[in-house]
Amino acid sequence: MKPFMTSEFLLDTETARVLYHEAAENQPIIDYHCHLSPKEIWEDIRYDNITQVWLGGDHYKWRLMRSAGVPEKYITGDGSDYEKFCAYAEVIGKAIGNPLYHWSHLELRRFFGYEGVLNKETAPEVWALANEKLRSDGFTSRGLILRSNVDVICTTDDPVDSLEYHEKLAADQTFPVTVLPAWRPDKAMNLEKDTYLDYLAQLEKASGVRIDSFAALKSALERRLDFFAAHQCRLSDHALNYVMYAPAAEEEVERVFKARLNGVIPNGSEEAEFKFAFMTFMAAQYHDRGWAMQLHYGCRRDNNPTMFRRMGPDTGFDCVDNTAPSTQTAAFLGALEEQDKLPRTILYSLNTNDNAAIDTILGCFQTDEAVGKIQHGAAWWFNDHFDGMTEHMRSLANLGYLAGFIGMLTDSRSFLSYPRHDYFRRILCRQLGRWVEDGFYPDDLDTLKQITADICYGNAKRYFDFPKKKV
Amino acid sequence: MKPFMTSEFLLDTETARVLYHEAAENQPIIDYHCHLSPKEIWEDIRYDNITQVWLGGDHYKWRLMRSAGVPEKYITGDGSDYEKFCAYAEVIGKAIGNPLYHWSHLELRRFFGYEGVLNKETAPEVWALANEKLRSDGFTSRGLILRSNVDVICTTDDPVDSLEYHEKLAADQTFPVTVLPAWRPDKAMNLEKDTYLDYLAQLEKASGVRIDSFAALKSALERRLDFFAAHQCRLSDHALNYVMYAPAAEEEVERVFKARLNGVIPNGSEEAEFKFAFMTFMAAQYHDRGWAMQLHYGCRRDNNPTMFRRMGPDTGFDCVDNTAPSTQTAAFLGALEEQDKLPRTILYSLNTNDNAAIDTILGCFQTDEAVGKIQHGAAWWFNDHFDGMTEHMRSLANLGYLAGFIGMLTDSRSFLSYPRHDYFRRILCRQLGRWVEDGFYPDDLDTLKQITADICYGNAKRYFDFPKKKV
Amino acid sequence: MKPFMTSEFLLDTETARVLYHEAAENQPIIDYHCHLSPKEIWEDIRYDNITQVWLGGDHYKWRLMRSAGVPEKYITGDGSDYEKFCAYAEVIGKAIGNPLYHWSHLELRRFFGYEGVLNKETAPEVWALANEKLRSDGFTSRGLILRSNVDVICTTDDPVDSLEYHEKLAADQTFPVTVLPAWRPDKAMNLEKDTYLDYLAQLEKASGVRIDSFAALKSALERRLDFFAAHQCRLSDHALNYVMYAPAAEEEVERVFKARLNGVIPNGSEEAEFKFAFMTFMAAQYHDRGWAMQLHYGCRRDNNPTMFRRMGPDTGFDCVDNTAPSTQTAAFLGALEEQDKLPRTILYSLNTNDNAAIDTILGCFQTDEAVGKIQHGAAWWFNDHFDGMTEHMRSLANLGYLAGFIGMLTDSRSFLSYPRHDYFRRILCRQLGRWVEDGFYPDDLDTLKQITADICYGNAKRYFDFPKKKV
Repeated sequence: MKPFMTSEFLLDTETARVLYHEAAENQPIIDYHCHLSPKEIWEDIRYDNITQVWLGGDHYKWRLMRSAGVPEKYITGDGSDYEKFCAYAEVIGKAIGNPLYHWSHLELRRFFGYEGVLNKETAPEVWALANEKLRSDGFTSRGLILRSNVDVICTTDDPVDSLEYHEKLAADQTFPVTVLPAWRPDKAMNLEKDTYLDYLAQLEKASGVRIDSFAALKSALERRLDFFAAHQCRLSDHALNYVMYAPAAEEEVERVFKARLNGVIPNGSEEAEFKFAFMTFMAAQYHDRGWAMQLHYGCRRDNNPTMFRRMGPDTGFDCVDNTAPSTQTAAFLGALEEQDKLPRTILYSLNTNDNAAIDTILGCFQTDEAVGKIQHGAAWWFNDHFDGMTEHMRSLANLGYLAGFIGMLTDSRSFLSYPRHDYFRRILCRQLGRWVEDGFYPDDLDTLKQITADICYGNAKRYFDFPKKKV
Repeated sequence: MKPFMTSEFLLDTETARVLYHEAAENQPIIDYHCHLSPKEIWEDIRYDNITQVWLGGDHYKWRLMRSAGVPEKYITGDGSDYEKFCAYAEVIGKAIGNPLYHWSHLELRRFFGYEGVLNKETAPEVWALANEKLRSDGFTSRGLILRSNVDVICTTDDPVDSLEYHEKLAADQTFPVTVLPAWRPDKAMNLEKDTYLDYLAQLEKASGVRIDSFAALKSALERRLDFFAAHQCRLSDHALNYVMYAPAAEEEVERVFKARLNGVIPNGSEEAEFKFAFMTFMAAQYHDRGWAMQLHYGCRRDNNPTMFRRMGPDTGFDCVDNTAPSTQTAAFLGALEEQDKLPRTILYSLNTNDNAAIDTILGCFQTDEAVGKIQHGAAWWFNDHFDGMTEHMRSLANLGYLAGFIGMLTDSRSFLSYPRHDYFRRILCRQLGRWVEDGFYPDDLDTLKQITADICYGNAKRYFDFPKKKV
Repeated sequence: MKPFMTSEFLLDTETARVLYHEAAENQPIIDYHCHLSPKEIWEDIRYDNITQVWLGGDHYKWRLMRSAGVPEKYITGDGSDYEKFCAYAEVIGKAIGNPLYHWSHLELRRFFGYEGVLNKETAPEVWALANEKLRSDGFTSRGLILRSNVDVICTTDDPVDSLEYHEKLAADQTFPVTVLPAWRPDKAMNLEKDTYLDYLAQLEKASGVRIDSFAALKSALERRLDFFAAHQCRLSDHALNYVMYAPAAEEEVERVFKARLNGVIPNGSEEAEFKFAFMTFMAAQYHDRGWAMQLHYGCRRDNNPTMFRRMGPDTGFDCVDNTAPSTQTAAFLGALEEQDKLPRTILYSLNTNDNAAIDTILGCFQTDEAVGKIQHGAAWWFNDHFDGMTEHMRSLANLGYLAGFIGMLTDSRSFLSYPRHDYFRRILCRQLGRWVEDGFYPDDLDTLKQITADICYGNAKRYFDFPKKKV
């Protein structure tokens, strides 16, 4: 077999190779959106074997295995860790075209120094090699972060969270990485859920505010925003069905909210009105505090009721939702702009058909407040592959200013996911190289390197203006 | 001119050529979805000239001719067969980029041994050559099937069909190809149509069940399902506007159905409720019988009222419908899963914007019941071209397990359409070859050949588990 | 640096180069849709500097500058012309992948003979060079048109327009270019607007018809249609949210219209019913007069309320609207066909996801009235870039008859925009060349040149049948 996934992986032009090696490869990572556990970072946990760290919570891999007909026993069931690893190895060995093929091999190369291919035959040797490495120093949660050249990590945190581990990490002079909370108040918005009142009880406790009205909910959230701000929070994150525009009188929103306190689930239009009011409030808060606002949509979650009952959310049963109207996204941002309360905003849709709509919405709200004040977030989740990232960047370039793009995030639950930044950087350099070699842009390497370095690191650094940890 | 559409057509890498010639080209064909007439197979019909067999019922060609400004006289009117052939030849000669260019030339090469190009100038020589061949043996309906290396054919049949010709074909020891019926009960579902009550009368007659309630309709269909099962039916097919989720109480569905028996056309939401109930019933039947369920959507039919009155359906006046909500597709499958009644399912949308939604829905319902229990059907009808098939396979690979894909179908009314399988196989090998030569996958030819052969033949064979005809 | 954007820009195969230089490059331009001012053509205006002619009214460039964080002062504010030019030069210098990069350099090469790259460093030299040229003869509005080899220009005109400058231009024997009005009656349709009654007052004055009913509105419009016809108008243009199908009784439409005369704004369904009736009337008029009908949709305009108040429409604050149902587009055309009133029609959606829906709708209504009677208009506005034009042409080729395509338009407000036709022609030749060199079509250069020349010029000439100016 020919050499495979070497240091030049994806770099198919001389320009791409120069840009990657001289401007991208060695940039630190700002992972401004992930689902790592601050507790696990603090505790500097170790892993017994590669299945634990690699397959334990990774619903991407689970989906692929299910698609290949693997019994659930060897995915999330009572199969042994070795059996599960072998089952994954057999599937990945034939998963041509799937990004997990690349992610998995990038991770094996980066962390375990394995330069071969993973498949049914090589599973035993990879199992042995990886587990041996995991027993050595530098393979704890912190070790994996440190060897990935990470500058900043933003976790995903609920308003009721104590941020206890963030406090400990901030005070820990032995760990040089900035770990910050990010504000994700979905549970405070989703009043249609069964569990909403239970959540409000938690929020009352965390905030010390009695929540007997929408006004009181807002006060409670303000207290928690202050608390998050005191912990250096710089950005928020919202998972929405779609970005809605449904204005209603304040009294109407109060009426809907109070009815919910009395157990009345709102109908569809009442729900939209409440959520629009909620989002309008939150956005104004972010604007006034200088936080960025992330809006994720285009996803329908927990589609398999049987598996949801058995396993809960985030276990690999979500799909693309294709029903988001761009008109409402634009109207929501317009309403904020009109009140001079539009924060820096990052829009992500899981539905790539929305790329052009998003990229043209951006252009309606840009100002000199920042380069690319309104951003189209990186190709995300199901779209975090060669085609998805390439299409995202081409669309952004066609319709906007690619050079101002704040770049990649992992959105991951795993300490082994940082090579997704490397994957992104290679795809970026490949695209830039293609444009140059195809005569779409001059071979002005100084400018190209600056653009590359900015997208990999500099733009995010300037955009979020994170505090630098003093160590 | 350079050699054109040779044996290496589309095979632009060494890997593609090896895979095609060693693992794809000689695989038998399982054409699990077509519109061939079992009567015409049984009768082993002959054709007087190439216009009859090639242009007689082919609405793809008719559309192209209309688009090029050809008068209807030379398409479906009273022009002579020779005039029609010449009109098509002139149009196809300039139809750069259209899949008919490739289909037509693949068919001319495969069946008639014509290696040149078809255009206005060459029309007379092709007319003469093809007609001479059509007079020789081996150019009957059966002959065309046999020389195409076809293993299994599934036709498209109505529940009221007598399956008379399927019976005769099954008993005919001189014809080695397995020809099976497929169950297509659209007419039993579409209660909004004028002709619905007439159809129910036919179904009463075929089933011997008096249909005075929805319950009775279900009984009648069960009888016919038994009849189809006795004729070795293994799969069903539904043409839907979209895959709907509209649960309603059984009594409400009965009320809507009985009102329809009394001539009351349901409104939009009643129609959706009835159809959802109908589909839920059918899916459970398929599940219990081990049949696969095909769901086709994303099409608006018969858009030209003038031509519909003149020519009826399936004459080239359909278009892509872009209004299908993926949320309802996911909810329908979820509802079946919850009742443990989800059959093996193949989803097809004529709207390629739905690719990613479908490919992510698949992943929510996969189990070890089959490799790729839920399938994304091959690029279909308007999408049966290089771009459409390539995008379909890339999307499936990005979001799922391409190696488990059950591959191509013709969806055709013509005995000359089998080269569409060849077209698909070349495009598959081209894509696999590109991934290898581009460093996306190792050059492990053994695995690649296995993947290729599986997609061309093995996966469909295992997935449908057709009975093999004994001859 | 390597040579950049030379005469061979985008022409990456020998076939592409031959087709471009021998069949495309020297074709005259038919710019059948633009927003040039006939007054400015008549007055043969001069420009003081490149900022005036290049940045003065170009909202494409403004958007890009805002996206890069440039203060509004240097975009549309009180910055000096030189400062604005330098600000644009700095931004464009890093705008890799954006079509403005290519448009700007094509314009600098074509009109100013500048062969270098524009960026922060070169801004002073380009400023000096361009301004020197602008002072010489041949850089007036007419001069710029003449040096672009333009045959026909269709402007965009309101029914109330006096067409005074069209008359003067038609009579001017010194200017050989045919400049015709195009009929754009949006203001007569959009009855939901505040300004609707004011507009009707203007229309009353222009037509001499008192508009006290929908019937009277139609009479007024007929008078103006006659007036436009007397000025050689050959086509119309409509900006729609979507192409709607909402049939209602004539009396109901009258009721809605009369209520509007009394100040009652219609609700959503009343608005759709009125607009459907309006469009049905207009289309029949076009059909009977032999005019073409352009329908533009997929756009949401004026999304930034703050900037709209400050700057008005067409200032760079529009986005893609993704909510148009293809079913209604098909139903509208079907309703016209049924009455035998379907004119030649050109469909454009700003949402490229609609490409396949449009291309399949075309095929439902083609007749021998024209080659490609129903057209998919060229990739437009936000899609007027390499990817957008390539995807448009590939989709049209896959689903229809590319050889009948009527080709490019500028849709521009600037006399410097004609190189967009050159950009289109290069992209067309590149695509044709690729198909040939990739074995998708034979290297039959005679046919290829004919196809190329037809798409660049001949098809539009035959399709619109413009009168030729006698000079």
